[in-house]
Amino acid sequence: MSHVVKKRKLDKTRQDRLYFDSYTDVTIHEEMIADHVRTNTYRMAILNNSESIRGKVVLDVGAGTGVLSMFCVQAGARKVYAVEACSIAEQAANIVKQNNMEDKIEVIRGTVETVDLPEKVEVIVSEWMGYALLHESMLNSVLYARDKWLKPGGIILPHKAELYIAPVSDPVVEDRLQFWYTVKDQYGVDMSCMSDFARGCIMNSDITVNSVHGEDVLSHPARFAELDLHTVTVEELRSVKGKFNFESFGSAAVNAFCVFFTVTFPCPDKPQPLVLSTSPFKPETHWKQAVLYLDAPVDVVQDTVVTGEISMFPSEESARHICIHVDYIIGEQKRQSKTFSIPDWSSGAQS
Amino acid sequence: MSHVVKKRKLDKTRQDRLYFDSYTDVTIHEEMIADHVRTNTYRMAILNNSESIRGKVVLDVGAGTGVLSMFCVQAGARKVYAVEACSIAEQAANIVKQNNMEDKIEVIRGTVETVDLPEKVEVIVSEWMGYALLHESMLNSVLYARDKWLKPGGIILPHKAELYIAPVSDPVVEDRLQFWYTVKDQYGVDMSCMSDFARGCIMNSDITVNSVHGEDVLSHPARFAELDLHTVTVEELRSVKGKFNFESFGSAAVNAFCVFFTVTFPCPDKPQPLVLSTSPFKPETHWKQAVLYLDAPVDVVQDTVVTGEISMFPSEESARHICIHVDYIIGEQKRQSKTFSIPDWSSGAQS
Repeated sequence: MSHVVKKRKLDKTRQDRLYFDSYTDVTIHEEMIADHVRTNTYRMAILNNSESIRGKVVLDVGAGTGVLSMFCVQAGARKVYAVEACSIAEQAANIVKQNNMEDKIEVIRGTVETVDLPEKVEVIVSEWMGYALLHESMLNSVLYARDKWLKPGGIILPHKAELYIAPVSDPVVEDRLQFWYTVKDQYGVDMSCMSDFARGCIMNSDITVNSVHGEDVLSHPARFAELDLHTVTVEELRSVKGKFNFESFGSAAVNAFCVFFTVTFPCPDKPQPLVLSTSPFKPETHWKQAVLYLDAPVDVVQDTVVTGEISMFPSEESARHICIHVDYIIGEQKRQSKTFSIPDWSSGAQS
Repeated sequence: MSHVVKKRKLDKTRQDRLYFDSYTDVTIHEEMIADHVRTNTYRMAILNNSESIRGKVVLDVGAGTGVLSMFCVQAGARKVYAVEACSIAEQAANIVKQNNMEDKIEVIRGTVETVDLPEKVEVIVSEWMGYALLHESMLNSVLYARDKWLKPGGIILPHKAELYIAPVSDPVVEDRLQFWYTVKDQYGVDMSCMSDFARGCIMNSDITVNSVHGEDVLSHPARFAELDLHTVTVEELRSVKGKFNFESFGSAAVNAFCVFFTVTFPCPDKPQPLVLSTSPFKPETHWKQAVLYLDAPVDVVQDTVVTGEISMFPSEESARHICIHVDYIIGEQKRQSKTFSIPDWSSGAQS
């Protein structure tokens, strides 16, 4: 009875609608505001850049509930255009009013690609990062805003993004595969043959958003891409890629690669720039990490070499959905290749 | 930009496909086998009924991985027809082979409405219960099997199902609404006006599957329906309803009703029948409880009376999706009414 469901290519209007609709519910905004690492790092970054913000005009791209715009007012901005395409803009307007900032913050409902601002701006602030950094493709809109609305010499917060990859051993997968061997003792029924089937289901081609803990990471992460938000182009975003080369810390069963990102804010007069990190070695954020499961676990020992190349590109079916392709060699194994995509959480992609 | 998305009525073939497809992945089967309350209670029930099973012919409706069929063989069944519509039937066949039960268990891929069995059966076993008992409507198939394949005097495991309702105070909702009042202290931005918006999003018209704890239940639950699986008809299942009358244990803010079920197995020669319960006062199962949020919390005190009527019926858009309608009066308030439905977790219901 089970049919193979072909994915129908979503037209762009449909893609946009599904994307924006997901921001109409409170839950995602609650998650973002409650993410202290995210929200506090942005606040610190904005306040640390008050010299560049005080008395200036700011554009907040994808303003959501407007919280970053309000941080900019706290930092002394003269005017903030808070552009937001989704109906949450109504809440942003309420919040601006509640905080007596209507004279400083103008909430504009619309996409940054279509709105008309009365003037160019000196500062762009945006929290645009999706799972695996580039899922949802909001960075394209930030670059559009930069090219259209940012004055020469203007600043972008954050101004740099970096992508990392590391080999990991996810213990939960191990447990889930092992589970089918435990049924016999519990119920007298041997279900161990389910383990292979389970592996095919779990170690699939999805980009899985999961929490990876530091102790599950099997080597120093490798940075495979760096984006300078002042100069990167939309064309370059269509193929973000790089090589990696790891040496395993010790004996383990690699069952996945983990991809994570950092964004960096300029920090004038400070020795260290301010970094918002989603590394498994740092406190967790709502982004967690992007996990790419191999087809099956592979044993490594200390100093086993893992090399390869990773590339990220938009899905053909929906430009807002990211795909990741990895070519890799683990130890003495032959070269492997696997392509991953964000599962279709949204409706309507099945005909 | 946000559009109102109209729900398109799913044709029956599409409804069935979406339903069966959800059982092709390992995760739901892992969840069911790992649910010890569920699996062990079925095992105990089947073994306790070995007198009715030994040397007899059994039909397992919706056999999944075939585990109940194998319990029937452990109880001495002569033959088990394990009928399963979804591709997991292939795994069931593997497991039967691995356990050397091929001579006893015949896995038949197909719906019970269309398969042809060589003979009628003396026993029907099925784990058919969905969220809020009736979501997924698999009970209709059990009744079809009963009417077509069960010999007179045959037994059905389980043979009774009961539905309960109780008023609850979900503390997580309280926290989530309160959250927006905490932002000012954290970040200097007053976001308390988001609380109303949050309430509209969270206390919505979905049937929410959640864990309800005993201490959050505000009165003795009331049973509002009882189904005798030997006699209930498909027509009766289209409208399962009953009245309720509670007296609150103490002071609290009621923010929801909780619906849960039990199923009962015959237990010959034992003083108590065997009950599989999904009550919030019992150990948790993968069914958790079905939570129906009011539009807003209502304060009650000790002995506040809550009365009303609850009815369950299939959704017009998809017969496998359950709807629940509740009319209720809390204390001195005026009568309220609210209709809930299972949210559209499956794809394709948006045009």
